[in-house]
Amino acid sequence: MTIFTKVELTDRLAKARSATEASGIDAVLISPGADLHYLTGYDAKPLERLTCLVLRPGAEPLLVVPVLERAAAQASPAGDLGLELVSWHETEDPYALVAALLPPGTRRIAYDNHMWAEKLLAFRSALPGTEQELAGEILRELRMRKSGNEIEALRRAGAAIDRVHARMAEWLRPGRTEREVGADIAEAIAAEGHATVDFVIVGSGPNGASPHHDLSDRVIQPGDPVVVDIGGTTADGYCSDSTRTYVAGGEAPEEFAAYYEVLLRAQIAACEHVRPGVTAASVDAAARDVIAAAGYGERFIHRTGHGIGMQGHEDPYIVAGNERVLEPGMAFSIEPGIYVDGAHGARIEDIVVVTDDGVERLNLTPRELVVIDA
Amino acid sequence: MTIFTKVELTDRLAKARSATEASGIDAVLISPGADLHYLTGYDAKPLERLTCLVLRPGAEPLLVVPVLERAAAQASPAGDLGLELVSWHETEDPYALVAALLPPGTRRIAYDNHMWAEKLLAFRSALPGTEQELAGEILRELRMRKSGNEIEALRRAGAAIDRVHARMAEWLRPGRTEREVGADIAEAIAAEGHATVDFVIVGSGPNGASPHHDLSDRVIQPGDPVVVDIGGTTADGYCSDSTRTYVAGGEAPEEFAAYYEVLLRAQIAACEHVRPGVTAASVDAAARDVIAAAGYGERFIHRTGHGIGMQGHEDPYIVAGNERVLEPGMAFSIEPGIYVDGAHGARIEDIVVVTDDGVERLNLTPRELVVIDA
Repeated sequence: MTIFTKVELTDRLAKARSATEASGIDAVLISPGADLHYLTGYDAKPLERLTCLVLRPGAEPLLVVPVLERAAAQASPAGDLGLELVSWHETEDPYALVAALLPPGTRRIAYDNHMWAEKLLAFRSALPGTEQELAGEILRELRMRKSGNEIEALRRAGAAIDRVHARMAEWLRPGRTEREVGADIAEAIAAEGHATVDFVIVGSGPNGASPHHDLSDRVIQPGDPVVVDIGGTTADGYCSDSTRTYVAGGEAPEEFAAYYEVLLRAQIAACEHVRPGVTAASVDAAARDVIAAAGYGERFIHRTGHGIGMQGHEDPYIVAGNERVLEPGMAFSIEPGIYVDGAHGARIEDIVVVTDDGVERLNLTPRELVVIDA
Repeated sequence: MTIFTKVELTDRLAKARSATEASGIDAVLISPGADLHYLTGYDAKPLERLTCLVLRPGAEPLLVVPVLERAAAQASPAGDLGLELVSWHETEDPYALVAALLPPGTRRIAYDNHMWAEKLLAFRSALPGTEQELAGEILRELRMRKSGNEIEALRRAGAAIDRVHARMAEWLRPGRTEREVGADIAEAIAAEGHATVDFVIVGSGPNGASPHHDLSDRVIQPGDPVVVDIGGTTADGYCSDSTRTYVAGGEAPEEFAAYYEVLLRAQIAACEHVRPGVTAASVDAAARDVIAAAGYGERFIHRTGHGIGMQGHEDPYIVAGNERVLEPGMAFSIEPGIYVDGAHGARIEDIVVVTDDGVERLNLTPRELVVIDA
């Protein structure tokens, strides 16, 4: 919880309020999730009862909570911010309660991007005549530009997941199933400094050609390329995400070895391209051009990366068409892949952060193909 | 994954289709989450890219997926259902793609209750002139009535969390922090038959008065009442949730011992009240009346329970005002609590399922106060 200092949270809330005022939005409503956690330090579970931060231009923020969660909200970092807590009882209508807290003439209301449909539609009924927009338009501009504390938190997360990759030879070998290997990796993700295990992909042989494969009962064979894409969230609330591709004890298929070299050059080219002033799309192109030039363009079936912070996937997205200009403090993955259906695949992924004059990689395990001896 | 047989899933999809036709809804759109998992067996992660099951009266269901997740969808139980998979590439607009798949004249569209606001608003833009409603109106009627396989899955989940409670004396003792005890419990939740650990509440002393407390660095004191509310999700996708209140090595405060007896009578009364034909509200009243009669009514600050299945909280909610009539196969928690601010609290929670002529409790550890010797 180290980074949720009162100073940092107060600054985030103040910036959100100014941005709201500047946008012409009349109110911002934020339910549990990364936005609420980011703005108040309150890591409330998204559940059916309404918890909602209410931001209004020219007024102090309020936090609406079910009465049974009032003490939990107060005990969270949000309790130190001097936020007024408004609680509601089980048989009250919290949507009507929030509606009554908004100033007369409220017309444009922005909601957090992950608010559940049932809540958004309940607000639509409780606030007839208002327009529903997304708070992401405002909040992404704050959350995309990481503070020094946030970069430090991402650095710790990166180091934690690097320690797991560094131990891969303990678990990954022919004769074991992906699920067995994955269970060991999950345990290590927790042991090496994460509060939650968010995903464990072990894609061996043909399963490596499915980018969002998770785990199966397939037995790893000698010489199988194995894509291992893993991540978790630290106690600070920041995410890790790193992919390495291994060969499990034996000789890799010839075609695989050839395209892995292409992929490595592509990933390095994209990392080296990152600096303030270039666009997200140009980073995607830096990786894609290398892969396309080698004839594998059709096999790179996803964007090059995604932003990362308190969500595993957030802005900026590193994808064709995204003309967002990169700035210092932006953090994202660079993870090109090449996938050969029915045979195998490869992906190399680092989290990087834009510095004042270039880039810092937060994942530092070797990117060259690691052959694990059986 | 045993319960996601093709037969059961096909039946669920057919029932969802009939219910859609009967409701006058023109289309149902379901994004990743419990509804998609329930209907197709596909446990897709909720992420920013659109994955969406499309149900249309009089037509076969479709599953729209990002191209990089096509293989993962195909490898899930959904792959055996003969669903048509429609995939989209990173730079395409999946909302326009779904809009084009809906029949001309589509007017009323129902969305899963947990769809993210950003997706719901994207559909609103892509489908001008349509009305947005909640698919929960249709799906809760299916999901609330558990099949024999589902009850068996909930029974396994209940037995798994019971095994964790039965081991509490290994971990809970004065001198340890809630966080230390919670870490051990979390490990045991995983070890005793859950795929994920969903929540661990260890509320010692005054923290027991905060119903949704989680873990703190408070050191447990001799004689502290400690509320332990824990749950996870099994590999089948079904949830456990059980609360017991312990006294950690020493004598409990006198007032606590007195109201614990009231609470126990209330919980038993509510369990015994459950049978087909009674309302959810009457189950709440059965517990609340006992507590109110003893003078603790103001201290029971939440409803008596919530439904459970593939979500930790779902219909039916056991709360005043809910006139839903209980039917065989409905499963929910019975968890009255008494909370004394600043001092301590107690809660007793079992999952129960309505049988043909009464009730079956799925949690069977003793409900009497357990004093753990130091």
